[in-house]
Amino acid sequence: MAKLDDFSDVKSIAILGLGMIGGSLAAALKKRGYQGKISAWGRQRSNLSKGLEAGIVDTISEDIAAVAVTADIIVIATPTIVAENLFPILKQLELHDAYVTDVASVKGNLRAAAVDCFGAMPSNLVLGHPIAGSEQSGVQAANPDLYVDHRVILTPEPTTDDNATNVIAAMWRFAGGSVETMSVAEHDQLLAATSHLPHVLAYSLVDTLGALDSHDDIFKFAAGGFRDFSRIASSDPNMWQEICVANNTAIVALLEQFEANLSAIKQAVQAKDSESLQKIFTRAKQHRDHYLALHKGDSKL
Amino acid sequence: MAKLDDFSDVKSIAILGLGMIGGSLAAALKKRGYQGKISAWGRQRSNLSKGLEAGIVDTISEDIAAVAVTADIIVIATPTIVAENLFPILKQLELHDAYVTDVASVKGNLRAAAVDCFGAMPSNLVLGHPIAGSEQSGVQAANPDLYVDHRVILTPEPTTDDNATNVIAAMWRFAGGSVETMSVAEHDQLLAATSHLPHVLAYSLVDTLGALDSHDDIFKFAAGGFRDFSRIASSDPNMWQEICVANNTAIVALLEQFEANLSAIKQAVQAKDSESLQKIFTRAKQHRDHYLALHKGDSKL
Repeated sequence: MAKLDDFSDVKSIAILGLGMIGGSLAAALKKRGYQGKISAWGRQRSNLSKGLEAGIVDTISEDIAAVAVTADIIVIATPTIVAENLFPILKQLELHDAYVTDVASVKGNLRAAAVDCFGAMPSNLVLGHPIAGSEQSGVQAANPDLYVDHRVILTPEPTTDDNATNVIAAMWRFAGGSVETMSVAEHDQLLAATSHLPHVLAYSLVDTLGALDSHDDIFKFAAGGFRDFSRIASSDPNMWQEICVANNTAIVALLEQFEANLSAIKQAVQAKDSESLQKIFTRAKQHRDHYLALHKGDSKL
Repeated sequence: MAKLDDFSDVKSIAILGLGMIGGSLAAALKKRGYQGKISAWGRQRSNLSKGLEAGIVDTISEDIAAVAVTADIIVIATPTIVAENLFPILKQLELHDAYVTDVASVKGNLRAAAVDCFGAMPSNLVLGHPIAGSEQSGVQAANPDLYVDHRVILTPEPTTDDNATNVIAAMWRFAGGSVETMSVAEHDQLLAATSHLPHVLAYSLVDTLGALDSHDDIFKFAAGGFRDFSRIASSDPNMWQEICVANNTAIVALLEQFEANLSAIKQAVQAKDSESLQKIFTRAKQHRDHYLALHKGDSKL
């Protein structure tokens, strides 16, 4: 079989699930001059229609076969739980040599679902994750520049077709992203630290304050620091409970490390131990300064 | 004694400690056309000189008496620990009927220091706190619009001279702030919730991640959510250890409520309890949406 080995040969891209992430990919490809066809499947006609009206996709269908069987690249951009259920459907379709990828925030559960469905990781399936997003959701939040200066992680396996990895990587670069590869386990541990743990803490902080008798005054007087800190607590609760469930082992392990760290700070506060607090806060500030230095060139940081 | 009862009669303001907060007050008064004299005392000549060169103060001195004895309003804008030590110095000076206020993030410890020094809260002392700031510090970070759309809390007591409260409130309104009054205890509990707890969590998160073997990758791949969440971990460690020590009772009480909330989330994650997670995250999102609605008109939110 003559498989595609170059993104310029990709004539058709199917996006399964046209939300903020899939919609932004379509919008990015269009904005940067992709000449092939972009089709979208979704469960809500109204959502698909918005994408069509916005001109970011060429065709839409509520029939998954209608968009999938002619595609050179299939991008699964649904919520994680839906994505797991798409594998058996894709398995039944007579796909030609399409490369398949996804965008979910957790990779381990999808990998397990794929192995469960196909018996092993298919060589044309490259799980991926664009590290970009916002607390907004839906195709109406699609942003053609969402991936610019953002990393896209692909998790090819030893058995993955190199052409699949290369063509999918080229698609993301075309959309503005910069591609890195790592293992599924590395990805899930990394994201637990950089994204999942901060989201859990933001939700927990806002929920803690909301439960206080004085919560009206608290939210009235909360200033900029609180706004930035709590922004991610405005994220979609359903998506985030799915992520927590999908990546629960890595998240729980990190939560325990965080609890130990916080407990040490609490004891120092209680004991008015200025020296320990100064040491911990200084170390944290140095880490954050290092983070800022690493991202100095990023236009979005 | 004929005490001032109107801010328009205030001919001279002394700022003790010319950092970001005191410098921004001076800059705000100047920008908005205050015609009186602004003088500054500080421990570092270089810092005072920067303020003079920037034109935000009229005179500077390393001799506290030189700026304090002629002032109608004295604003203590030093770090909390220094502020406590200024009371005995001010007590020894022959101040005329100056009104005295401060800007510290915690009020209970300063109130105790004042009572300790003066035997009771002086009627001309109105402790205060402008709820504004940034992770930057120093007079070079002074911003004439820092207080616009920001609240300034004053904590007058039953024994406080109403004229003192009114004139100091008018000064802050002149600088762009909106003034509210509450008790010292209410202030310290409120700030523990809206500011001190979030700072402790941000420091703890960054310190936890920094201690992981993979911290280089973590900081490399951390995206916008992490940046916003961790911004306040770039705050001055010395100032924040002082705040934690000064307000330790309220902070520890809140930390314990937060720990209980986080523990419940952790258990739900561990048990893959989607329903509980959905409920908690939805509740938190609703609280944050309420917060955003409350601050809809604020230009800085």
